[in-house]
Amino acid sequence: MEIPSRLIESAVNELARLPGVGKRTALRFVLHLLRQDAVHTGTLSESLLRLRTEIKYCSICYSLSDDTICNVCSNPLRNHSLICVVEDIRDMMAVENTGQFKGVFHVLGGLISPLEGIGPEKLKIKELTERIQNNEIDEVIMALPATVEGDTTGFFLFRKMQELNIKVTTLSKGIAVGDQLEYADEITLGRSLINRIPYEETIVKT
Amino acid sequence: MEIPSRLIESAVNELARLPGVGKRTALRFVLHLLRQDAVHTGTLSESLLRLRTEIKYCSICYSLSDDTICNVCSNPLRNHSLICVVEDIRDMMAVENTGQFKGVFHVLGGLISPLEGIGPEKLKIKELTERIQNNEIDEVIMALPATVEGDTTGFFLFRKMQELNIKVTTLSKGIAVGDQLEYADEITLGRSLINRIPYEETIVKT
Repeated sequence: MEIPSRLIESAVNELARLPGVGKRTALRFVLHLLRQDAVHTGTLSESLLRLRTEIKYCSICYSLSDDTICNVCSNPLRNHSLICVVEDIRDMMAVENTGQFKGVFHVLGGLISPLEGIGPEKLKIKELTERIQNNEIDEVIMALPATVEGDTTGFFLFRKMQELNIKVTTLSKGIAVGDQLEYADEITLGRSLINRIPYEETIVKT
Repeated sequence: MEIPSRLIESAVNELARLPGVGKRTALRFVLHLLRQDAVHTGTLSESLLRLRTEIKYCSICYSLSDDTICNVCSNPLRNHSLICVVEDIRDMMAVENTGQFKGVFHVLGGLISPLEGIGPEKLKIKELTERIQNNEIDEVIMALPATVEGDTTGFFLFRKMQELNIKVTTLSKGIAVGDQLEYADEITLGRSLINRIPYEETIVKT
């Protein structure tokens, strides 16, 4: 694709670095911005720059935050002895959106992945153990993805937590709510058979 | 979707204005930028801003350009008496990419669309007729999309060009190269029957 203008080309190349954005989509973005008032591009440009320069990591849970302590960690109504361990802020938001969690978070910033060269030292694992040692923590909930990397990271953390003698739980795996059994994959269905639970526990308490 | 940081929220909202980008995709972009070096966000932000403030319209063909006259219009090797009329710079690039066109362009900047309140006066149509009157033009090729708006605009232009007594041609419509007849829609197949051409004209001259 040959672009007749260098200004457009440079903007297209920069936008095409975004995940899932090819040059064609980037050009669509650029033409859209050019059709809009210049003020829109100004605010977009400024908000990206402010984001990158002003964002902080919460000094307690390492989630992205506007301040040195995030909204969740600074909220006295949350249960600070219950820590939910997540991969990144997206998973934190997913847990928050359930409305079922009243504890606090710990954001690892990734998962252990030898293939990508991400070892435990690149994640906020030392910070998690220190946090557990220096505070009264009742339970650590692993809310990690049900992938190889998620399981590896979970098991590594579980062994660390065992040394600290702390209760560790993990999200239950099983049939998604609303799913047909015939369309569930064998592994999920098999695990939900093995991990079957007393029926009375499934009755939602109101 | 509740976003815990205002900086992230503002960046997400701005990115979600881009066509085809929802808040979820915008958040993915934001997290990607935050994982990258700050310099990437800086160059992205700057190139968007430069694009919007420094880009010009070519004073001859009204395509987007870095200078007051675009690369095509300033090229003495192009045939300046053959004008290809296109909707926007994307279509100009599509025609350029064929490598089959040695003339110059005229970018309308849109199509006539009463539904969207776009009348002929909002397009570079007056500029086109003036350009034809003030220069020696042999032929105008309509390379407009095969949609209702494209056809409307094409017919409007055709009538204007008739007043100027100039040769007007349009892109041929028909079966796409490589297409199976059974999958072609009836209207396209019907038109390509009506507009059938002498076989010898289809033999590519090398």
